[in-house]
Amino acid sequence: MAEAAAGIRARFGFGGEAKTAVPLAEVEVRAPRLKAPEAFGDLFTADKYERVSRAMGKAYRDVVRGFYGRFENPPDLVARPRDRSEVETVLSWAEAEGAAVIPFGGGTSVVGGVEPRLGDRPVVTLDLRRIDRLVEVDPTSLAARIEAGATGPRLEEQLRGHGLTMRCYPQSFEYATLGGWIATRAGGHFATKETHVDDLVELVRAVTPRGSWESRRLPGSGAGPSPDRMLLGSEGILGVITDAWVRVRPRPEWKAAATVRFERFGDACEAIREIVQAGLDPANCRLLEAAEAEMTGAGDGKSHLLLLAFESSHHPVDAPLAIALAAAKDHRGIADEPRYTAPLTGRKIKQGLRNRPTNEEGAPKGDDSAADSWRGAFFLAPYLRDTFVACGVLSETFETAMTWDRLEEFHATVMETARRAVAEVTGTAGEGRGAPLVTCRFTHAYPDGVAPYFTVLAPAIRGGEVEQWDEIKAAVSEALIDGGGTITHHHAVGRDHRPWYDRQRPGPFAAALRAAKAELDPAAILNPGVLLDP
Amino acid sequence: MAEAAAGIRARFGFGGEAKTAVPLAEVEVRAPRLKAPEAFGDLFTADKYERVSRAMGKAYRDVVRGFYGRFENPPDLVARPRDRSEVETVLSWAEAEGAAVIPFGGGTSVVGGVEPRLGDRPVVTLDLRRIDRLVEVDPTSLAARIEAGATGPRLEEQLRGHGLTMRCYPQSFEYATLGGWIATRAGGHFATKETHVDDLVELVRAVTPRGSWESRRLPGSGAGPSPDRMLLGSEGILGVITDAWVRVRPRPEWKAAATVRFERFGDACEAIREIVQAGLDPANCRLLEAAEAEMTGAGDGKSHLLLLAFESSHHPVDAPLAIALAAAKDHRGIADEPRYTAPLTGRKIKQGLRNRPTNEEGAPKGDDSAADSWRGAFFLAPYLRDTFVACGVLSETFETAMTWDRLEEFHATVMETARRAVAEVTGTAGEGRGAPLVTCRFTHAYPDGVAPYFTVLAPAIRGGEVEQWDEIKAAVSEALIDGGGTITHHHAVGRDHRPWYDRQRPGPFAAALRAAKAELDPAAILNPGVLLDP
Repeated sequence: MAEAAAGIRARFGFGGEAKTAVPLAEVEVRAPRLKAPEAFGDLFTADKYERVSRAMGKAYRDVVRGFYGRFENPPDLVARPRDRSEVETVLSWAEAEGAAVIPFGGGTSVVGGVEPRLGDRPVVTLDLRRIDRLVEVDPTSLAARIEAGATGPRLEEQLRGHGLTMRCYPQSFEYATLGGWIATRAGGHFATKETHVDDLVELVRAVTPRGSWESRRLPGSGAGPSPDRMLLGSEGILGVITDAWVRVRPRPEWKAAATVRFERFGDACEAIREIVQAGLDPANCRLLEAAEAEMTGAGDGKSHLLLLAFESSHHPVDAPLAIALAAAKDHRGIADEPRYTAPLTGRKIKQGLRNRPTNEEGAPKGDDSAADSWRGAFFLAPYLRDTFVACGVLSETFETAMTWDRLEEFHATVMETARRAVAEVTGTAGEGRGAPLVTCRFTHAYPDGVAPYFTVLAPAIRGGEVEQWDEIKAAVSEALIDGGGTITHHHAVGRDHRPWYDRQRPGPFAAALRAAKAELDPAAILNPGVLLDP
Repeated sequence: MAEAAAGIRARFGFGGEAKTAVPLAEVEVRAPRLKAPEAFGDLFTADKYERVSRAMGKAYRDVVRGFYGRFENPPDLVARPRDRSEVETVLSWAEAEGAAVIPFGGGTSVVGGVEPRLGDRPVVTLDLRRIDRLVEVDPTSLAARIEAGATGPRLEEQLRGHGLTMRCYPQSFEYATLGGWIATRAGGHFATKETHVDDLVELVRAVTPRGSWESRRLPGSGAGPSPDRMLLGSEGILGVITDAWVRVRPRPEWKAAATVRFERFGDACEAIREIVQAGLDPANCRLLEAAEAEMTGAGDGKSHLLLLAFESSHHPVDAPLAIALAAAKDHRGIADEPRYTAPLTGRKIKQGLRNRPTNEEGAPKGDDSAADSWRGAFFLAPYLRDTFVACGVLSETFETAMTWDRLEEFHATVMETARRAVAEVTGTAGEGRGAPLVTCRFTHAYPDGVAPYFTVLAPAIRGGEVEQWDEIKAAVSEALIDGGGTITHHHAVGRDHRPWYDRQRPGPFAAALRAAKAELDPAAILNPGVLLDP
């Protein structure tokens, strides 16, 4: 950690000596206000570590409080059901006790989605990670029934035995669960087309206080408003998602990738716009601003980098890459040498085969140094947050979506707002070494716009990190909403985004959601405070 | 009409002499039970023709009743607002009068979606077709704000001036409106990827009794359950859709198409499955069973026909067609000579240009004889329904969706059920000339399944057509639901599909929808009886 702190100082010109987190033994935690009947056996636990480790998510404001041992809102009990009937048991018992229930997957929320900020009301955190099986595979339709508590690695490991993959790789991949992805409309692997887990869901099953919710397993339907779309993004307020049928696919055998450098950011935007409006649907189409590329080690800070990749389990994808690169060239993009991957056998792989060799990589691996560097940084970033906290570096990421026509002004305003807020809050400004960093990348691209993702790194004022973070968060959230954006493209709403989400959603929709919630959860036990007032 | 009747007899071996519809003058219609204050001017009308022509949709059971002059449930008044504030006026006045309000676009519902089956309750039918402007075009993001009452031709005509098209061509294209498409989750032009209008919507605006509902214009979002997805498929029960931002595109300049013949239906299914699971996303990928191909004049009745087409406004699409045809060949498909279309200029057309030449076709035109024949039949079929009624031919179409793994058994069961029901109801059976026809096509294809669409033609017993139709409808709907399908892939639920829709949807979802409706529409004025009990 001392070396990390030195490295951070060398690289960014800010950050202090590494401090040490308050050890668990020194953490003071409120005594549980609930006691589970012994008849429930080990379904509930009041163990200190179990409670503390589920007291918050992974936002900077969570990690920094954890670092200082400030666990202000620990759940009173943690429930760890083994099956659906135990989920029902937990809900019934909690309702009888007047307790709230917070569904918990990987605990990777960066929006306060799992923190029991409920004052005097007792709380059970319902951890679903024991319910994590691959229940059934349909290799013909390329779909699988998977339990909600399966983490990314756990579900991929089970699918691998069938030669299949879900290819849903949010940054939280290692810890987050399928149920959490569905409840929060997680963003996945694909930069275009199937950008959210929404697009991969065939059927969702949930337990509500009003009974079991199970949609039909269908490739498509037009029968009334989609029931699945009401659970997607419901963040636990309507029911506890227990399992789902999701679309899977054979692992890609053919890949074609290239990195394109742009001098001007506007040119890069135009290139992306042409590529997605052409319907090319690249699997990767991520734009790193020069400063972001430098920060993640993918670039030299002089060029903006567009990471382009196509993939297929069925046929070579050289042709669409060539079209995309021609479009990029028309906008003054300079591509490096494209990289192609073909299957080892050289033969076409037919779909739906069982028992395919399992020697393929479990996690997405890179095609070239820039993409590799970026991808490595992408999956490491959540862990770095811990290091930053220890070293006195304030960090925040926030993300949104915007149509092309308003993008330039919106992007400039948000960047400027973030810079100003950071300067005011941390007392540092300017450019170059020692100045705070505000950088941007585009994580997803649509025919009608993109999802910009912003990163803030600045020197923290130790002891005041939460207040600093809250101020920056408020300023940039105002900018997102005032500028016509969404408060979140794939991080969810939780508790931290509530004020801006409330302004974003249509009033009658809020009233409808409130009524739906009251109907299904009349005692308001399910994740109170998320999306709606507790 | 006499010639049509003879032609039908010659072709199918059943059907009688053409009879004449009861003329409007002889139709007896209940006196209006509402009277609009004169202050409203011509906002409301009680004119007989206006009321009668909005008394039903276009299902066979509607057309046959209209033919016999049986307008059992005419609206008491027809409102024709010119703008959003007049929509609000209609809702307020109707609520004060205790009247129901049925939002009405093209009146092309085939599921009883616009028929006021409300007994003693007075009804205003709210026709939105005067609210039909293209309000704004964003050529950069390829999106347009269009008012809900614009019919297919009307919106395409306005977009054409900008060199753009929505390319949403449901069979109801000529009459149906954008608002109707959104309210019913209409199926569009594309056989894969963007199969429903759902996928084209950026923002929806509606008037509810509780106020204005307006989502944000975004390319994507993850902020809570999607508000748009709650209005999509809401069939008028939550609010009156007044306008929407939708995705549009330049007209396709490059096309590549081919028709593939298959001896075995199973082979054709496997070919489609491989093509869609490969991620090729053809614009057209419709399979006509041999009998359906013969009926529509697209084939000789010996082969099953797969109509394949790719299109692009950006680049040639020969390559994906070649891959798809190779897949089809692997499954014993025999393709005719592919047909390619390139832009007249031979130059690449850049996106987002305004004032493009408008000499392009307004409606989808064919690429070859089989596809032309089928497409001609597709757009003519709704009109033929009138002719069939006059000639004593019973006709019905119904549609669903099913995953690949269960498709073969499901398809066989539904076909057998339809044949048995038709035989029982009409007293005719068997094969060949004079026997009823039950045929199938696949209208949309997904990686995990397809949307089968069934057509029934049989001799009607004159005077008993509605009862015959209801019996067949009930039998096939049971088969769809018992077999795990959806009661509708893109025809909507309306009143006719209610019993099966009620079985299909998750119980807690129904409760949530009911609560949402009660919140937004406490006097239950909006399209009562559709989706939920009145």
